[in-house]
Amino acid sequence: MITFADVRAAAARIRGHVHRTPVLTCQTLDHELGARVFAKCENLQKVGAFKARGACNAVFGLEAAAAARGVLTHSSGNHGAALAYAARKRGVPCLVVMPDSAPAVKVAAVRGYGAEVVLCNAAERDAVSARLQRERGMTLVHPFEDPLVVAGQGTAALELLEEVPELDLVITPVGGGGLCAGTAVTVAALRPQAAVLAAEPQAVDDAARSLATGVRQPRVDGARSWGDGLMTGLGEPNFHLLRQHHVRVVTVGEDAIVAAATFFLQRMKIVVEPSGATVLAALRSIEPELAGRRIGMVLSGGNTDFAWLPQRH
Amino acid sequence: MITFADVRAAAARIRGHVHRTPVLTCQTLDHELGARVFAKCENLQKVGAFKARGACNAVFGLEAAAAARGVLTHSSGNHGAALAYAARKRGVPCLVVMPDSAPAVKVAAVRGYGAEVVLCNAAERDAVSARLQRERGMTLVHPFEDPLVVAGQGTAALELLEEVPELDLVITPVGGGGLCAGTAVTVAALRPQAAVLAAEPQAVDDAARSLATGVRQPRVDGARSWGDGLMTGLGEPNFHLLRQHHVRVVTVGEDAIVAAATFFLQRMKIVVEPSGATVLAALRSIEPELAGRRIGMVLSGGNTDFAWLPQRH
Repeated sequence: MITFADVRAAAARIRGHVHRTPVLTCQTLDHELGARVFAKCENLQKVGAFKARGACNAVFGLEAAAAARGVLTHSSGNHGAALAYAARKRGVPCLVVMPDSAPAVKVAAVRGYGAEVVLCNAAERDAVSARLQRERGMTLVHPFEDPLVVAGQGTAALELLEEVPELDLVITPVGGGGLCAGTAVTVAALRPQAAVLAAEPQAVDDAARSLATGVRQPRVDGARSWGDGLMTGLGEPNFHLLRQHHVRVVTVGEDAIVAAATFFLQRMKIVVEPSGATVLAALRSIEPELAGRRIGMVLSGGNTDFAWLPQRH
Repeated sequence: MITFADVRAAAARIRGHVHRTPVLTCQTLDHELGARVFAKCENLQKVGAFKARGACNAVFGLEAAAAARGVLTHSSGNHGAALAYAARKRGVPCLVVMPDSAPAVKVAAVRGYGAEVVLCNAAERDAVSARLQRERGMTLVHPFEDPLVVAGQGTAALELLEEVPELDLVITPVGGGGLCAGTAVTVAALRPQAAVLAAEPQAVDDAARSLATGVRQPRVDGARSWGDGLMTGLGEPNFHLLRQHHVRVVTVGEDAIVAAATFFLQRMKIVVEPSGATVLAALRSIEPELAGRRIGMVLSGGNTDFAWLPQRH
């Protein structure tokens, strides 16, 4: 499990390869919540998501010989694009195993960053990845359990706390838990009196139930949520980090997620994907607790097809 | 006509009342244009547009006695909301004359900032404004001809050049010309070797024809453009400032405007209203000239109802 020293090392390693994203404020939001809110805009990050941080830390953290053999992952989302981006930055091969059900636009995006894509049946994903890893000697970079990835994700909160040190509360979305775990480690080191919250769609509430029961619950299968980046189950090391740092999970409904994403678009003029908008939905649901607090929220990404946007007539 | 000293004074006056907006970069855009582009995000400004700068400078530039009587303007767009915002910040009355054809949502926005709204027939706008100004002793703040407004708008380019000094070219949209004139004055003072460009919809190309002929051309009436913030004619003092500083106007078609606004949304994850997106459309149309150049573009605002967004099916 990672420590804050790993986050510090990640920050030094990825500097120049990722954006130092802006922190935005919005008076309308502050009035609504009776609090001061600072939005760390990872939607404005390279590849449109915080995933660029972890992927760059993993790729640039490899020894030269291993790096030369390349990196591999399985992902249908932002991590695949992020790893492809990082590999191209270092000039090493990258292979992304994607389900053959993945939208063509996502496959094209990963290829656009210069990676090789192997399509397979979703059920065969692990077997195909393992075989390719064996055959090519590539390093597997897990989307949210790789320690270098988790440490890299923690650098967003590091920058946020450098810019706004006196926060009372920091909230991130939770899916596999890499962002939330990296954030919890960082906040515990730099601002131990601040609470760390995690926002999770009710439809896939395994993290909430895992922390409530103290036993990691399996991924919810077959659910539907606009938070497509949060459908995965909470990773084992992240579960332990979230428990250790007393992270509180707040679950949110689909209508609240859409309303939050719409608020970002209409009022803050930024594109936040529904997975990222869960943090605002969560804050709204606990608004009575927030009076006078200083809140950091990590907006995880901005990659969306706008299918959630209320249709115009 | 304003000088750079007025812009400097404006910057000091409005500090704390407006955002210092972020400057974003995008590798995809740099690759496409073969240049380095720096986007000054006035879409992330208070009230969603650079207009907050000029309005704050005008309101905070008033003597106490005049300020106490309040400010007045006629506007169906961002300037009305911006003046209302500035007046509330100073705690003085604000009255906005709006055409009775204005969308209810815009009227509500201005009222939401605490201003009184008077609706009238668009043809009677000037007469109604003059009468109210007389009756109430309010100060009229013209949307783009007031010198304090023009100087305030110049502070966006001032911040941009503070952050990225070595620009070869700066581009803004042009409608009434306040933003472009303020930018031209600032660039001439801080970076005289840089060219200043203005982007204008072909449908309302009076600025282009004014500068081409050396005679200010009347506003184009009855035209239609997605660039609803740019439908007004070029103001007299701004015309002279644009001529004096050799500003070059690049006109752009409607499809190019929509494509540019869509690019901002999908690739840069920010909401840029079509008027603001004209700058990217203009750069694309002169791409062969841009190789290796460092370009600042001022994204003027983010207030839009997304009617231009290609419909989903």
